[in-house]
Amino acid sequence: MSQDPLVVFTPSGKRGRFPVGTPVLTAARQLGVDLDSVCGGRGICSRCQITPGYGEFSKHGVTARDGALSQWNAVEQRYRDKRGLTEGRRLGCQATLQSDIVIDVPPESQVHKQVVRKRAEARDIVLDPSTRLFYVEVAEPDMHDPSGDLERLRDALREQWDLHKITADLHILQEMQPVLRKGGWKVTVAVHLGDKENNPRIMQIWPGYYDGTVYGLAVDLGSTTIAAHLCDLQTGEVLASSGLMNPQIRFGEDLMSRVSYSMMNAGGAAEMTRAVRAGMRDLFTQIAEEAGVDLALIVDAVFVCNPVMHHLFLGIDPFELGQAPFALTTNSALRLRGDDLELNIHPSARVYLLPCIAGHVGADAAAVALSEAPDKSDDLVLVVDVGTNAEILLGNKERVLACSSPTGPAFEGAQISSGQRAAPGAIERVEIDPVTKAPRFKVIGSDLWSDDPRFVIEIGATGITGICGSGIIEMVAEMRMHGIVDAPGLIGSPEQTGSDRCFPDGRTYSYLVHDGTADGGPLITITNRDIREIQMAKAALYSGARLLMDKFGVDKVDRVVLAGAFGAHISSKHAMVLGMIPDAPLDKVTSAGNAAGTGARIALLNTAARAEIEATVRAIHKVETAIEPRFQEHFVNASAIPNAVEPFPILNSIVTLPKATFNTGAEGGGRRRRRG
Amino acid sequence: MSQDPLVVFTPSGKRGRFPVGTPVLTAARQLGVDLDSVCGGRGICSRCQITPGYGEFSKHGVTARDGALSQWNAVEQRYRDKRGLTEGRRLGCQATLQSDIVIDVPPESQVHKQVVRKRAEARDIVLDPSTRLFYVEVAEPDMHDPSGDLERLRDALREQWDLHKITADLHILQEMQPVLRKGGWKVTVAVHLGDKENNPRIMQIWPGYYDGTVYGLAVDLGSTTIAAHLCDLQTGEVLASSGLMNPQIRFGEDLMSRVSYSMMNAGGAAEMTRAVRAGMRDLFTQIAEEAGVDLALIVDAVFVCNPVMHHLFLGIDPFELGQAPFALTTNSALRLRGDDLELNIHPSARVYLLPCIAGHVGADAAAVALSEAPDKSDDLVLVVDVGTNAEILLGNKERVLACSSPTGPAFEGAQISSGQRAAPGAIERVEIDPVTKAPRFKVIGSDLWSDDPRFVIEIGATGITGICGSGIIEMVAEMRMHGIVDAPGLIGSPEQTGSDRCFPDGRTYSYLVHDGTADGGPLITITNRDIREIQMAKAALYSGARLLMDKFGVDKVDRVVLAGAFGAHISSKHAMVLGMIPDAPLDKVTSAGNAAGTGARIALLNTAARAEIEATVRAIHKVETAIEPRFQEHFVNASAIPNAVEPFPILNSIVTLPKATFNTGAEGGGRRRRRG
Repeated sequence: MSQDPLVVFTPSGKRGRFPVGTPVLTAARQLGVDLDSVCGGRGICSRCQITPGYGEFSKHGVTARDGALSQWNAVEQRYRDKRGLTEGRRLGCQATLQSDIVIDVPPESQVHKQVVRKRAEARDIVLDPSTRLFYVEVAEPDMHDPSGDLERLRDALREQWDLHKITADLHILQEMQPVLRKGGWKVTVAVHLGDKENNPRIMQIWPGYYDGTVYGLAVDLGSTTIAAHLCDLQTGEVLASSGLMNPQIRFGEDLMSRVSYSMMNAGGAAEMTRAVRAGMRDLFTQIAEEAGVDLALIVDAVFVCNPVMHHLFLGIDPFELGQAPFALTTNSALRLRGDDLELNIHPSARVYLLPCIAGHVGADAAAVALSEAPDKSDDLVLVVDVGTNAEILLGNKERVLACSSPTGPAFEGAQISSGQRAAPGAIERVEIDPVTKAPRFKVIGSDLWSDDPRFVIEIGATGITGICGSGIIEMVAEMRMHGIVDAPGLIGSPEQTGSDRCFPDGRTYSYLVHDGTADGGPLITITNRDIREIQMAKAALYSGARLLMDKFGVDKVDRVVLAGAFGAHISSKHAMVLGMIPDAPLDKVTSAGNAAGTGARIALLNTAARAEIEATVRAIHKVETAIEPRFQEHFVNASAIPNAVEPFPILNSIVTLPKATFNTGAEGGGRRRRRG
Repeated sequence: MSQDPLVVFTPSGKRGRFPVGTPVLTAARQLGVDLDSVCGGRGICSRCQITPGYGEFSKHGVTARDGALSQWNAVEQRYRDKRGLTEGRRLGCQATLQSDIVIDVPPESQVHKQVVRKRAEARDIVLDPSTRLFYVEVAEPDMHDPSGDLERLRDALREQWDLHKITADLHILQEMQPVLRKGGWKVTVAVHLGDKENNPRIMQIWPGYYDGTVYGLAVDLGSTTIAAHLCDLQTGEVLASSGLMNPQIRFGEDLMSRVSYSMMNAGGAAEMTRAVRAGMRDLFTQIAEEAGVDLALIVDAVFVCNPVMHHLFLGIDPFELGQAPFALTTNSALRLRGDDLELNIHPSARVYLLPCIAGHVGADAAAVALSEAPDKSDDLVLVVDVGTNAEILLGNKERVLACSSPTGPAFEGAQISSGQRAAPGAIERVEIDPVTKAPRFKVIGSDLWSDDPRFVIEIGATGITGICGSGIIEMVAEMRMHGIVDAPGLIGSPEQTGSDRCFPDGRTYSYLVHDGTADGGPLITITNRDIREIQMAKAALYSGARLLMDKFGVDKVDRVVLAGAFGAHISSKHAMVLGMIPDAPLDKVTSAGNAAGTGARIALLNTAARAEIEATVRAIHKVETAIEPRFQEHFVNASAIPNAVEPFPILNSIVTLPKATFNTGAEGGGRRRRRG
């Protein structure tokens, strides 16, 4: 007697024999092959499309002859005629096995498909959404054996989809009866598959087969901006990305000033909670409009943010975060409902907040850890999320350490005399001529250097308005490289520097970058006070990193990842000249862009990643810089440019920094900045 | 070497040996003795009071000598001096074992104490509340090992109370930090202990030791009235009971007219949902004021109601309940939050709705089953909840059957020419003189019979206004017993009955009960149409019960329980003369009062009872009268008074019913009433 047909699925390589006439979908399910289906094999949803392979497959030991799959049946033909089917594709639920065959499951037919990411070193996103669609046929009510509609729907989900312990939100109970009858006892339901705190739950119900999808939001709630990605939970695709300024800015630019606002004003915390939630609703309305999506179909949302934003968003007074011992209300991940937070998405949308790492190392740092996965790295990686409070991770597969360091807003152009936010007209790149000591620069909005004859015309009405964060870093680094500022951070006199761009300015000297006053523009200079601000910011950043290196027992790191929007614009060389980051090969200093936002997106699309990052965060060793005696010592050393004691051998092999010092006895060393 | 001291606890009889110096509470816990404690043995709460017994206890084989417990320590003395302690009592957490002793745990020191109930045949209530208070000492935050306040509180609950998987509502997160600090890291929390859908959850938090309690509500949501009991969840005591008219009455007196209202008016169901929820809030405000209790401390609520009320309360259109196949949205028990139902108690109060049995047999019938426990009865019991829709249970330990039957509102005095609700002035008891055929009666508000000379004075201004439900039943039964109405339900002529109180009234005769017209009062009569209404109501009730008896395979029942407020006022003899209920010894016909409300209270106070009634309801065999062919036959037979075919031997041994028939060819037999 001949054997049952052999089927080999690619790319999984799973194989097995099934009786003639077995549908491909059935074979796939029995073998545990990842082949999607919403309609459960009824030829409606077309999600189980497969590509049969014919001919000789020596690798699999299979010879597939024509007729290895059944002829096109009426359902399949009707689907092809009405909806179209790519050449070579079949519906896995209709085509049945006749003889040996190799069957490829294309990525779009896989539930756990991979979502494309841009960077090779970052963690892949494998789709594993919290909420999936299921088409079911429900038994009609029977007076001889009375039961509720919900109970029969539950039975159908158990029998047809092996889903157990299904619950339903009250609004589903309210809608269910007419929907079941309108669909003739055939409905599609969106089921949140449950998590460690909640049983699976019906989130939406549609009559008949619902040919749509449901959505999720990945939200990065920053002190300055709120950014959101709207994703299709069935494909993992980002449909729209949008952002707005955090409306809390009117209560204070930085975190510490918002904490102060709540301390100084009764009801201030509640006011800020209302503001951020209102902003969130505006953003969601905007992003849903942009994508043409119904807000009520957004059934899942993941939020990342720093601890102060976390508390204010949840409606918790951040008082305790403003003072030692910086106690969080909770450092665990939170699983809430949309209406708990007054969101305007699906009322019982599942809301997930990543865990916080410590009082100053928030869910945003956890998201960075999820995206950049230092805990999965073979080499020792330093991940720095540059912001007004830098969050720093150092680690490898063995262990991961974390701390935060109060860099202040200087890197964002604040508290710098000519500083400004990154916006058109802001100087973002700088080069100083080694001979003339004159700067040339680029401003945001133009790719031309300022010494290009077309520059003035191209920048046109915008003009040159100031210097943004990345511009400041390059400027100070260039000044240090060309002998205008010395290692302790003093700007030299025209005599000391050989440049008449240095001019006396009170008790110290300033450096002239650009004089636009003739055209009614600003006079852009770097004052010695600006240098001090940058010194303190970068010293805070470096000493946090250095402290983690001490704790790890190392003197150098294998690579450095700069996270945050700002990190994307920093020149590695200049950052290293400044001594912001430890000495490392330049090609080992990379930017991860908005890694916190990426982490949020991973947690949204891959539910398994949630449990994973919770475990990772629990294992992270937290270091509180405020109580580490060596932090102060590192800070003082790191106030020098690049550093008073650290050798920076790799940097020194690339650039030669002048040794001159301009000490005139004016001003003291770095002051320790307060957190903020 | 001498042995460790032996301790015997009463009433449990649990015994064991413990080292000298072991606190009594510790010994009790290790033996699994039910000894309460909120403060965890810190001498604060005094809930662990015990009564040591000294002397010879031959039953236990113990001789307890003086000094078997330690001397009063400072904590115990301070407690006694400040708060007082009943003579002979000690604090179980302070007194330690020194030598053999017998220790009694008084009921008030038991967590699972029994709540007193009035009736011997009913189920006991053993206190097993959903929510308990726990005093804990929480570790302070430590910058060297940062963790959230919630996480340290959770650790404390796990270590000090063995509570696991604790979650917290968002409002707890919002309140927690200042409360922990105000209490010096000592707090009392109210923890809902969880159920099959939810993990344990912190519901309230107080600084230090909270010397109060938390509350629960047992609510019976009827078509006509909403009644609630407010209970102390620590003692089980009912602190206040209150009720109000269901505000939905303005949309229709009975269930069917409310279903019609929602069908005829767009948004009508939502309007009724708003009305009943608003009524609920008014009732809760009223009951909380009466008991002097903060609404926010009501953390648990149990609701029972019929299916239409159930759906309208939940915001579900009851459309499907108005037509075959009478499909419920859900027949499972529901676990919701207070704010899901817009209640004005604790926002995340745990709300429990008992399961419905079938489309016409609601959560109120489930509550009756919980209270009257037919499933635990050795003898075969018929439980009838008399209302506009009678819900009927028949069963014993072997099995339980249930159905409903559309009795209509006649038993409530509606659709009766002189009928009225039970209120002062309504005739509630009737006796007809065998010779004169004149009635004497009692009205609500007086204990005197109407032939008492003081009667007119005593009823005073109220007067005699009509006949209420129980009055109608006695009236018709008395008329049958004294030959005024015949078995088929016709009122005889003066000649046939020998009474000139019978007078022609259209094509039939009516019977004069009371003529108050001379004093401006009503003419109270019983018309033949009234008799027909009562016949149909009682036939519906009886035929439902008889159908269950058929299904059970019996001709008689051992006992009958009349539930519902109305049931409490029915005379068993008259009910049986009427043929409302099956033939049974009169002393085996008892009233259970508001058994549905009692069932709600059991489910509130004893959480184990919730799982139990859910299992019981699943096991109940549901009978849908509308599709049972024999129902119609039983109905026709039961239209006769007491019955056209059933013998009623026990009844006949007590009363002799006249055999005369008055058939004049007027009017037909019983019509089948529609449900309502």
